[in-house]
Amino acid sequence: TNKYAAKGYSSNRIFAPYSVYKGKAAFSLSPILPTFTKLDSGAVVVDRRGSMMMVFMHAIGERKYDWENKQRFALSATEIGSLISMGPQDSCEFFHDPSMLSSNAGQVRKSLSIKPHANSNGYFISLNVVNNLLNTKDFLSVPVTTAEFAVMKTACSFALPHIMGWDHMTHQSGGTVGLKSKVEQPALDLEWDK
Amino acid sequence: TNKYAAKGYSSNRIFAPYSVYKGKAAFSLSPILPTFTKLDSGAVVVDRRGSMMMVFMHAIGERKYDWENKQRFALSATEIGSLISMGPQDSCEFFHDPSMLSSNAGQVRKSLSIKPHANSNGYFISLNVVNNLLNTKDFLSVPVTTAEFAVMKTACSFALPHIMGWDHMTHQSGGTVGLKSKVEQPALDLEWDK
Amino acid sequence: TNKYAAKGYSSNRIFAPYSVYKGKAAFSLSPILPTFTKLDSGAVVVDRRGSMMMVFMHAIGERKYDWENKQRFALSATEIGSLISMGPQDSCEFFHDPSMLSSNAGQVRKSLSIKPHANSNGYFISLNVVNNLLNTKDFLSVPVTTAEFAVMKTACSFALPHIMGWDHMTHQSGGTVGLKSKVEQPALDLEWDK
Amino acid sequence: TNKYAAKGYSSNRIFAPYSVYKGKAAFSLSPILPTFTKLDSGAVVVDRRGSMMMVFMHAIGERKYDWENKQRFALSATEIGSLISMGPQDSCEFFHDPSMLSSNAGQVRKSLSIKPHANSNGYFISLNVVNNLLNTKDFLSVPVTTAEFAVMKTACSFALPHIMGWDHMTHQSGGTVGLKSKVEQPALDLEWDK
Repeated sequence: TNKYAAKGYSSNRIFAPYSVYKGKAAFSLSPILPTFTKLDSGAVVVDRRGSMMMVFMHAIGERKYDWENKQRFALSATEIGSLISMGPQDSCEFFHDPSMLSSNAGQVRKSLSIKPHANSNGYFISLNVVNNLLNTKDFLSVPVTTAEFAVMKTACSFALPHIMGWDHMTHQSGGTVGLKSKVEQPALDLEWDK
Repeated sequence: TNKYAAKGYSSNRIFAPYSVYKGKAAFSLSPILPTFTKLDSGAVVVDRRGSMMMVFMHAIGERKYDWENKQRFALSATEIGSLISMGPQDSCEFFHDPSMLSSNAGQVRKSLSIKPHANSNGYFISLNVVNNLLNTKDFLSVPVTTAEFAVMKTACSFALPHIMGWDHMTHQSGGTVGLKSKVEQPALDLEWDK
Repeated sequence: TNKYAAKGYSSNRIFAPYSVYKGKAAFSLSPILPTFTKLDSGAVVVDRRGSMMMVFMHAIGERKYDWENKQRFALSATEIGSLISMGPQDSCEFFHDPSMLSSNAGQVRKSLSIKPHANSNGYFISLNVVNNLLNTKDFLSVPVTTAEFAVMKTACSFALPHIMGWDHMTHQSGGTVGLKSKVEQPALDLEWDK
Repeated sequence: TNKYAAKGYSSNRIFAPYSVYKGKAAFSLSPILPTFTKLDSGAVVVDRRGSMMMVFMHAIGERKYDWENKQRFALSATEIGSLISMGPQDSCEFFHDPSMLSSNAGQVRKSLSIKPHANSNGYFISLNVVNNLLNTKDFLSVPVTTAEFAVMKTACSFALPHIMGWDHMTHQSGGTVGLKSKVEQPALDLEWDK
């Protein structure tokens, strides 16, 4: 099998994160597209899943943030599903172990929580990182308004099919009408074939 | 008339299903695009309708699933409409007969049901297949969380216009501005013509 | 000024209406894209607005419909706004006069109504046409289920920005990254210029 | 660094505003895309943020509006987030100072308010401009129906990811499948690297 990345992904990457800067900390949100692998059969399958990357920074002065010590948390498709289906009173929490499948499993624990403000007028988005390898703890919390959360929901809903790779399934015929001859036999096993 | 498939549909197909793996069974969800036929008049019409294909498998061990014995169920546009309009307490059920228009009509009966958990916190998605030709019965049920169902709803809402072929109607001028001279007479009968 | 149509609009048009066939009548729904005019300044403006075309037919037998005597009703962007914001108990009605600006104004009156079923489980979509020129009256009514109406809402929400021509405003740089040098002076009067 | 505008942005711009004309005033709504800067590293970042431009005009006769004396108000991504998350009883207000970072800061104050009608059946959208430099005041108010506001919400939800520049992040591989060889080392620091 050969590995592939979407064109322009590495060298010409466009950065347009949605950032929320507040008094004690900030975070930015940006989609990471999936990568694909072409099998010998010619079929193309998802190699590395896409995600919604959240990057948190502490404030270190007025409108200054500590870019050197970022903490990352990559939301999966299903975690994005939790976020976009939250009502104004709902809360949710996700747990990640970056070393999950290695010998260091359990040594670093990250949790992201989204909790409503007492007045139902926005949320606290907080990241907690416990690193037993470095013997460090880190906690970052950013209050978001209802309007900022609406932007996050709309942008995540827009990005979700792209993160899942479904834009490639559905737009593969390009911007043009793009039709070509179909072979005589149906190319797909449909439900009716069984 | 000539038959056409969307470019890349058969030979370069991309697989990026959304899969939900649970203890007793799993399913995956992926959109199937419509195919088109070009009439002698030059007009292009939908030949085979698109659908949302659900593929169910039984668990046959820890994190192992029986890929040899899949059951398929293809949701139509209107059935997708049912799914995406479900509230947390709603349920729905669809009935298919894969041999509907053949001499075997009524011999195989499939039904897909989506029923809310007792606590309104997610759904059971279950497929029932009764095959009188092979004298078999099969039942597969997968519990999905609210977050997983939100991914399904968002992905199905995104895919629905593509399954209906409306992305071709609306994006036919391509990614570029793509304008060309219009003939003097209006090309379409509008409401006002009558 | 020169007139333009979107590429492929007239000669290679793709037909993929969403159709609802019921016992007494049927209708189909399909988006009509706007056309554009290029001004001498080089700016491109909307020439003819887009719409959502509804075509109604009477049933004239089992699964047969009277294609010869169709009635059309073209929903404007704002009427689509009414449709997609309807709750399960809401109703709405639109009035059109196809000869509005001619000497025949008032001679043909069309009204489309969407009214909820008594049990809140779907709607009746009805077209009434009174033609004083031909001395005819016509009435067609199609019951739609909640699922069918969900398809209509989702498809109309998808199509609305295309009908408004906003897909051209936002996708004009094409599928590629598509950047070119910017002139020194800002090309647009922004809010801050005033 | 080099500055870039999206292709066609300045010379071939397409105008397709959504306009609401009422008895005393009118406004139009149209998206302004972000511009990008290419850094020496090859990365492309947002240079000027996108917005949703509202342009208000007074009525100066029957169906005539004062195009000479427009007032502009550019909604940011977060302000669009407020608009699209408004319920039927909600109101919101935004304050802008076009000279914010100049020596004239505070001399011109603009505020846009969206307030529900007494009967919850639509909103008043009003712009207030106090210009201490010119010693002028201006107030424009346009009533919008529920249907018109639904169009605004749907169009703004569609435009928001484009205004944020996320369409470039997710569609950068073009309309075609567009795959190229991936270098051996991962091109991105993912959450797991930390």
